[in-house]
Amino acid sequence: MGSGAEQLPEIIVLGPPAVFEIYDEQFSSRFRILRPWESEEPLPHFLASRAHTTLAALCSGGYPLSAAVLANLPSLRLVVTTSAGLDHIDLTECRRRGIAVAYAGNFFSADVADLAVGLLVDVLRKMTAGNRFVKNGLWPHKPHFPLGFKLGGKRVGIVGLGSIGLEVAKRLEAFGCAISYHSRKEKPFVSYTSYPDIHELASNCDVLVLCCSLTEQTHQMVNREVMLALGKDGVIVNISRGAVIDEKELVSCLLQGEIAGAGLDVFEHEPRPSPELYQLDNVVLSPHTAVLTEESMEGLYQLICGNLDAFFTDKPLLSQVPDE
Amino acid sequence: MGSGAEQLPEIIVLGPPAVFEIYDEQFSSRFRILRPWESEEPLPHFLASRAHTTLAALCSGGYPLSAAVLANLPSLRLVVTTSAGLDHIDLTECRRRGIAVAYAGNFFSADVADLAVGLLVDVLRKMTAGNRFVKNGLWPHKPHFPLGFKLGGKRVGIVGLGSIGLEVAKRLEAFGCAISYHSRKEKPFVSYTSYPDIHELASNCDVLVLCCSLTEQTHQMVNREVMLALGKDGVIVNISRGAVIDEKELVSCLLQGEIAGAGLDVFEHEPRPSPELYQLDNVVLSPHTAVLTEESMEGLYQLICGNLDAFFTDKPLLSQVPDE
Repeated sequence: MGSGAEQLPEIIVLGPPAVFEIYDEQFSSRFRILRPWESEEPLPHFLASRAHTTLAALCSGGYPLSAAVLANLPSLRLVVTTSAGLDHIDLTECRRRGIAVAYAGNFFSADVADLAVGLLVDVLRKMTAGNRFVKNGLWPHKPHFPLGFKLGGKRVGIVGLGSIGLEVAKRLEAFGCAISYHSRKEKPFVSYTSYPDIHELASNCDVLVLCCSLTEQTHQMVNREVMLALGKDGVIVNISRGAVIDEKELVSCLLQGEIAGAGLDVFEHEPRPSPELYQLDNVVLSPHTAVLTEESMEGLYQLICGNLDAFFTDKPLLSQVPDE
Repeated sequence: MGSGAEQLPEIIVLGPPAVFEIYDEQFSSRFRILRPWESEEPLPHFLASRAHTTLAALCSGGYPLSAAVLANLPSLRLVVTTSAGLDHIDLTECRRRGIAVAYAGNFFSADVADLAVGLLVDVLRKMTAGNRFVKNGLWPHKPHFPLGFKLGGKRVGIVGLGSIGLEVAKRLEAFGCAISYHSRKEKPFVSYTSYPDIHELASNCDVLVLCCSLTEQTHQMVNREVMLALGKDGVIVNISRGAVIDEKELVSCLLQGEIAGAGLDVFEHEPRPSPELYQLDNVVLSPHTAVLTEESMEGLYQLICGNLDAFFTDKPLLSQVPDE
């Protein structure tokens, strides 16, 4: 870095986020980075002793930015989170203290929708199970692999028809699926059937794709009753947040055959999904990779730097979280 | 069956096809079935002694219906194959002898396209690798799973823009892919760029999806040169026939990093793919399941019976192979 680094604007990085680890060198050439995870000091000490005057923080979706953490950053004016979701940030406290929040907005919607559709095709067509079957050398001995299910004609219910949900719908329409949805607000610009409650949506669908934010209202919204309404041939895909499903009940419904399968990128306790899920052939698990593509990480790096540069030069942020 | 079975029209089943095994009981209630695979007699003996007057045969895509086999069926007037591909049937001999051939036509196109797209999402987004990673309990120990690649913006070259190819294109357009193609005949009704040879297509694409029939012209058409033209970031998806690719060169290109990955439902020697493919994390294998859904098997059963009923009542076949 040399002495020039002292002149760079200072940011504190919390976590650190995946995109920071990938673009560490590039970030470090543009900002002076406080790295609490490399310190042996406990976080509150580190923040108190080193980050007293720090104006900007970078964090990821998995990092709980509580009022207590924020209290140790008295000069903070900007949080940049690398996520589209905001459930990890105490937004009320940020608003009270006048801390602006920038986020990934709709930046990841296409990537997340791609994985959602991939998970659905995988579960219905038994792709990872088929891959395992071939790679374990079973094919010559058992010529008939179990039949999968057709995408076309499936009634797909999208829970949360925001930017990601709309991208999922667009893709699944091309597969011939019939789309309906349940969302906080009805969307007058789409022709899909809207159901005012998720139970009714589940009763009228073969598949649920969860695309909503995690809020108090959506916490464990997909409970046992919703799964029973979806039924024994039903499939659930979750690319939102793990806690939108009651994971214990999901495991129980899968084990008891109350639903037919699931494709899950997110879990209540990451990186530790319920281990019962590991044994189920009709369940496809993904290590929260919905946003993790080389292309999106490069774009995200640019978006983060754009927000930080705007902040440090008193320009409008590129992707500020709107006030509700 | 009882004595009534004697009155049913007789068909010989060769293979037997998967759909026959699933709907054996239903077939047996409508037709008197000759079952050479249940006999200890060698096939030529069985045919000579039992099928001398048989008018109709049912076979699958994997069953080689050569002139020699046909010679043992002197009364044959109809072959019904459960496949869309016809590479296993000696069509010249059928034509010479006036044997009509009915097939699955475009019946499977949507299912095959669904799996093709699923395989592509899987390879680019590392889905089966991610599933293995989670189910093997590695996630808590290695928090960062390798990045995948975005679908949007990928230049996808479709080899063989028939019914399946068009269904693949429709789906991948919804993912934001840029479609081009190489096909026997240019398709004036589409706006996709056409390349007159596959080498040029590969040079201009990130992904090749093989949707063509296996013919003398397409046999090992995807050779080393085509793979080198596709390049180190290139991905191949094959849902057509294994022999369209030079599988030995495919293995070599994958091992040497000359291409980035592959999603394969078909192989040169089924059910025995090249075992080197089993070890590769960037390769997704599927046991030739592209047409195997519950819905398609039920529809196929109806289509086969419809063709047989039409034949035995002197009506036009539902899905006769057109003369070239």
